Amino acid sequence: MAPPKSPGLQTNMDVDYVICYRFTSADRSEATAQFEKLTKALQSVGLDTEVRNGASQSLLVFVKVASQEHLYGEVFRSRVKDWIHGVRAAAPKKETKEALESDPLNEAERLRIIYQLITNSPTEGGAGITPKEGEWKNVESIFALHDHAYNKEWIKKWSTAYFLKAEDLDAIRDRLGEKIGFYFAFTQSYFAFLVFPAVFGFSAWTLLGQFSPVYAIVISLWCIIFTEYWKHQEYDLAVRWGVRGVSSIETKRKGFQHEKEITDPVTGETVKYYPAKKRLMRQLLQIPFALVATIVLGTLIATCFGIEIFIREIYNGPLQFVLVFLPTGILTTCLPILTAILTNFASQLNSYENYETDSSYETAFTQKIFVLNFITSYLAIFLTAFVYVPFGSWIIPYLDIFSVTVKPFAENEQQLKAPEEGFTINPDRLRKQVIYFTVTAQLVNLGMEVVVPYLKRRGFAKFKKMQSDRAAKNGGGTADVAANDPPEEAAFLARVRNEAELDVYDVTTDLREMVLQFGYLALFSVVWPLTGVSFLINDWVELRADAIKICVEMQRPTPWRADTIGPWLDSLSFLAWLGSITTSALVYMFSHDGVGHVGTPADIKAWALLLCVFLSEHAFLLVRWAVRIAIGKLDSPGRQKERRERFLVRRKYFEESLAALEHAPKQYGEENVALATGEDGVKISRESLEEEARRQSEHGMSLEERFWGRQKGWRECAEVGKRLIERASTEAGEGKKEQ
Amino acid sequence: MAPPKSPGLQTNMDVDYVICYRFTSADRSEATAQFEKLTKALQSVGLDTEVRNGASQSLLVFVKVASQEHLYGEVFRSRVKDWIHGVRAAAPKKETKEALESDPLNEAERLRIIYQLITNSPTEGGAGITPKEGEWKNVESIFALHDHAYNKEWIKKWSTAYFLKAEDLDAIRDRLGEKIGFYFAFTQSYFAFLVFPAVFGFSAWTLLGQFSPVYAIVISLWCIIFTEYWKHQEYDLAVRWGVRGVSSIETKRKGFQHEKEITDPVTGETVKYYPAKKRLMRQLLQIPFALVATIVLGTLIATCFGIEIFIREIYNGPLQFVLVFLPTGILTTCLPILTAILTNFASQLNSYENYETDSSYETAFTQKIFVLNFITSYLAIFLTAFVYVPFGSWIIPYLDIFSVTVKPFAENEQQLKAPEEGFTINPDRLRKQVIYFTVTAQLVNLGMEVVVPYLKRRGFAKFKKMQSDRAAKNGGGTADVAANDPPEEAAFLARVRNEAELDVYDVTTDLREMVLQFGYLALFSVVWPLTGVSFLINDWVELRADAIKICVEMQRPTPWRADTIGPWLDSLSFLAWLGSITTSALVYMFSHDGVGHVGTPADIKAWALLLCVFLSEHAFLLVRWAVRIAIGKLDSPGRQKERRERFLVRRKYFEESLAALEHAPKQYGEENVALATGEDGVKISRESLEEEARRQSEHGMSLEERFWGRQKGWRECAEVGKRLIERASTEAGEGKKEQ
Repeated sequence: MAPPKSPGLQTNMDVDYVICYRFTSADRSEATAQFEKLTKALQSVGLDTEVRNGASQSLLVFVKVASQEHLYGEVFRSRVKDWIHGVRAAAPKKETKEALESDPLNEAERLRIIYQLITNSPTEGGAGITPKEGEWKNVESIFALHDHAYNKEWIKKWSTAYFLKAEDLDAIRDRLGEKIGFYFAFTQSYFAFLVFPAVFGFSAWTLLGQFSPVYAIVISLWCIIFTEYWKHQEYDLAVRWGVRGVSSIETKRKGFQHEKEITDPVTGETVKYYPAKKRLMRQLLQIPFALVATIVLGTLIATCFGIEIFIREIYNGPLQFVLVFLPTGILTTCLPILTAILTNFASQLNSYENYETDSSYETAFTQKIFVLNFITSYLAIFLTAFVYVPFGSWIIPYLDIFSVTVKPFAENEQQLKAPEEGFTINPDRLRKQVIYFTVTAQLVNLGMEVVVPYLKRRGFAKFKKMQSDRAAKNGGGTADVAANDPPEEAAFLARVRNEAELDVYDVTTDLREMVLQFGYLALFSVVWPLTGVSFLINDWVELRADAIKICVEMQRPTPWRADTIGPWLDSLSFLAWLGSITTSALVYMFSHDGVGHVGTPADIKAWALLLCVFLSEHAFLLVRWAVRIAIGKLDSPGRQKERRERFLVRRKYFEESLAALEHAPKQYGEENVALATGEDGVKISRESLEEEARRQSEHGMSLEERFWGRQKGWRECAEVGKRLIERASTEAGEGKKEQ
Repeated sequence: MAPPKSPGLQTNMDVDYVICYRFTSADRSEATAQFEKLTKALQSVGLDTEVRNGASQSLLVFVKVASQEHLYGEVFRSRVKDWIHGVRAAAPKKETKEALESDPLNEAERLRIIYQLITNSPTEGGAGITPKEGEWKNVESIFALHDHAYNKEWIKKWSTAYFLKAEDLDAIRDRLGEKIGFYFAFTQSYFAFLVFPAVFGFSAWTLLGQFSPVYAIVISLWCIIFTEYWKHQEYDLAVRWGVRGVSSIETKRKGFQHEKEITDPVTGETVKYYPAKKRLMRQLLQIPFALVATIVLGTLIATCFGIEIFIREIYNGPLQFVLVFLPTGILTTCLPILTAILTNFASQLNSYENYETDSSYETAFTQKIFVLNFITSYLAIFLTAFVYVPFGSWIIPYLDIFSVTVKPFAENEQQLKAPEEGFTINPDRLRKQVIYFTVTAQLVNLGMEVVVPYLKRRGFAKFKKMQSDRAAKNGGGTADVAANDPPEEAAFLARVRNEAELDVYDVTTDLREMVLQFGYLALFSVVWPLTGVSFLINDWVELRADAIKICVEMQRPTPWRADTIGPWLDSLSFLAWLGSITTSALVYMFSHDGVGHVGTPADIKAWALLLCVFLSEHAFLLVRWAVRIAIGKLDSPGRQKERRERFLVRRKYFEESLAALEHAPKQYGEENVALATGEDGVKISRESLEEEARRQSEHGMSLEERFWGRQKGWRECAEVGKRLIERASTEAGEGKKEQ
């Protein structure tokens, strides 16, 4: 790897983490005391510290592990915990250095363990520093430094490769942890799977046209196979990365508020307790929340929809070509605001539900976010397909209420009225809308993700420079924070100050984007079969753009572990299922005249539509069941690896235990061993037993003893059996003769 | 416990198992050689044998464990295996006697282990005796002897108790093993749950009448709760009985035929292999099988149905009241025959599918049997509800073809023709049919289960007696098999000869019966809400009748383990789901005029029916999802026990491993331990490090070393931080003042 050119990027100074400590001039003495506590806490868990000036009233505390041996101890402790929870098949080797040679420590594991050392509570052996919370409210962030040489290489490699290999994903995982690794693996897998709908969609588009039943069936099947195969692959990856089962290691959520302390019936320890019933009552608030969200967002979308229809189809006054963008304008302004408000509300509701563990908190939040996103992403198309098209002619007359929006521009009343001769709906509207959501919106989104933060960052830097310039001009009192930097560190510190200003990367946002994209494919791609092509191109760029985003625009993410993409998997299954309903309904409603429009509900037979949906859905469920079984039977390297590991451990334990057995019976006397080991031994022991039997008979034997004493050893038993067989056979022979 | 009165029932002579060895006079020498091999094989695994004469050309080989220590060794081996497969949380104690004191050996475990000792292959440490197979074709059966004192007590206790307690089920499990224990637990749980539909059904019947939507909703909800709760309970029971996870211990099926031997990629051992693809091809034969079964059984049922309708509704000639039973006659004759043929065919198909493990074989067979039973049990009602009632008037005219069946009895053609004035369907037919299946058929079935085998056994004994009497009269050559019995054993041997003739108990038959009964409740009870009452009474008797059946009419079953009722659970879920569809359809079709009949399809709106079904099904799925989550959150003693065990094991391992860690770092020098243990230690070690740093600086330090060398220890770091904070605050203050 060629070192980066900028001197500040060449070295990370062996720094493991940087803690950004921000203070205000008001609480100087408190800030000082807190800072002392901070360094003391860090040192107490074996971390070295160095402090430097940060930007605008902050300090940068550089943290590194003081001794490798101490770190090894922590690694060992973490690995033992994994083993006990079943994540590792075998116990880690006790000699930590040896263990690390046979099972090397990658950067993600190292950084995760150090991060936990900083943030875990003192009872768990950490320093207990929780950014922005409680007594550590001055600690703004804890972040690792980017490895610029690696980042450069990474982006270079990816931007020249068509497909990512398993090694590329492994490299991501080694650097950024399994959670982000899973995002890239999922997106890559989705990208690879997209080749099929892209090719097939293109063929269908040229040969079959829109609303083809064949396309609908194939795409539903594809959705099933992709979803089920990803589950299979996810398991495999988790084994490959050695994280299978980590989601069962629960971490207590810091924000959890207990009602009382009870003695855990399991562990006997005093634990913080919050009654599940109370939580359930709070969770029930989700129902009104979902309703309110649906009504609020639905009303906004439906209103804009109505206005647009009104302007586009009814209004024929001046400025129509401009006014037509009015609803889009309203939507793009109001929707993000409303979504932000509702997301904030969802987050508060989620905190109010008071989950005990981080994972349950995250799952619940993801579900809420999915509901919000479902509405904002798909409702408009649902309205067009299932309200506008079938009931258009019924509804249009009622759209007069929206005339207020354009009244100022109308020259006369006539321009605000629907034409008398009957109104025909716009047959192309559905297709255009799908194209908008699957092409335009995706591109806009991609741009927002990469370009906007870049501009924001540049603008922010410029603003700051202006500010400090002005301050310098005004009096020079507020000196540059970098003024006292040692010259050989200046470039490095400047870079760290930059990284401290960056945003924190949240992988769930990116995952959500992919899942919602999959939704368009599952729900509506039958309207416009080229959807797959658009997504294929988009996702190739997306994967690279995300890599750039992580490298350039975000702080280096703390590497967390995961063994699944979590609740998004349920979202995928749900969307695929819903797709079987919408797709069949769309095909039934639009395919019968080839062009795809009806306008009045008279042509649609409700029973046929429902039958179509009913059959399609049940076929979907049946096929999914079959595919699930079939894919469940596939073997894979990861599964083999897991079985091999478990087998080896089992054999080892079994052999150890049986070795113990070999020695055990000796206590009870030699003859028992002989009895257990075979024929010759039996004879010898038999003799002694017979001896005993004879002795006993002198005292009188029990019924049972006499029963068992009639035949001695297997030879006598076989002999008696032989005689009985012979007699029976002879008698049978005689019987026959006599007859 | 009072001992039984009959002397033969008072003792089991310490016999663990009886092997019934049957031979024909033709192969006398072979039989003798085989018998010798048998006794030798038994002795080689540490079992004592005694042989006695059996009935009609058979020998009874009595088997008992030769030494307790040998048995303990086997128990230990079995428990180690359990532990390694995760069934036990902790490794069993090595001293087997101690282990047996802390965790006593119940009779079921003892008998299971001895049975496995007899039947397991020699490579697994058994004698390899497989009844009726291969070289052991003369071994007719291997069975344990009934414990008559216990049996008497058991039946007495149950027949006087309304409800069974957990202890009663534990007693069953201790005697008969977990598999049978699960059947009784399931039936008991189902019985307890039935109280609700019985009470509610009775109220609905008096207050709401038939086809009440309220009843339909409540019963669907009940089905969901029962199914999900049973899953929850099943888990709990499995933990209580210490068998959680045993289904993952796969046993190789003896009938498995391999195509080639390959090296297992996991274990490195040579294993027998049969390609999954080939099996899949064979499994696809299930589709034509299901089709053929449906057509064959369906045709029979539909034909009898048609004939019955014809005779009952159209035919008005003589003997109608007799002829009306003709179709029932045909059905009761042909259906069992056809079912037996198809079951046999299913069994062959299942063997042909060549499963590798016993459990997969059993699951596949259960599924096939369920399909057959589904058709025979429910098709008739489906025909009435969804064909006869809605399409009756259309179909009736075509029933003329069945006139051939009664032509001989008709006096004129007119009697074979439908009345001209239009035909009305019989509105009460559906209800009568449901009552037939839920009351009459259940009673008949119960009778068949208990009475018929009793009569059969009595008849058989009489026949035998007659035969031997005749033989004795003819010449006295064929002596009574009991002639040479020692007088004190005579009663015992007579009893054993009786038990040898009994049937083998198959618990799946009884389970199937319960599941199919549940099906009537889920699918059709809305027709006749008293269904629950009938089942409640029936099942109280059923539970006791099954106990009697096991005690009196069957050989003592070999106690097998299980941690679930297996594939029947899926059947329950499936029936509950289907119930949501049929119930809503029945309610829609029949409830609107209160009486419940329509006759012509004109009154039924297809779209409304479909919408009703669609909504009902999705409501069902939604509620099931919610109930599943809610029930999944319930805690239970079993779950607590499991968690406690796992926690204790974890803590033990964790402490052991960390004890190792405490000692490990010493190797790397004392100062590291100091570093890891806190502040004071740090200071000391710091000094030595500083010393080293100074030494290094003489040779020139790297950039990184200089970076980390600026502040020594946390106190210096805190000091520097304090100064920086103060400066920044002062500057900020000055900046403000200047502004």
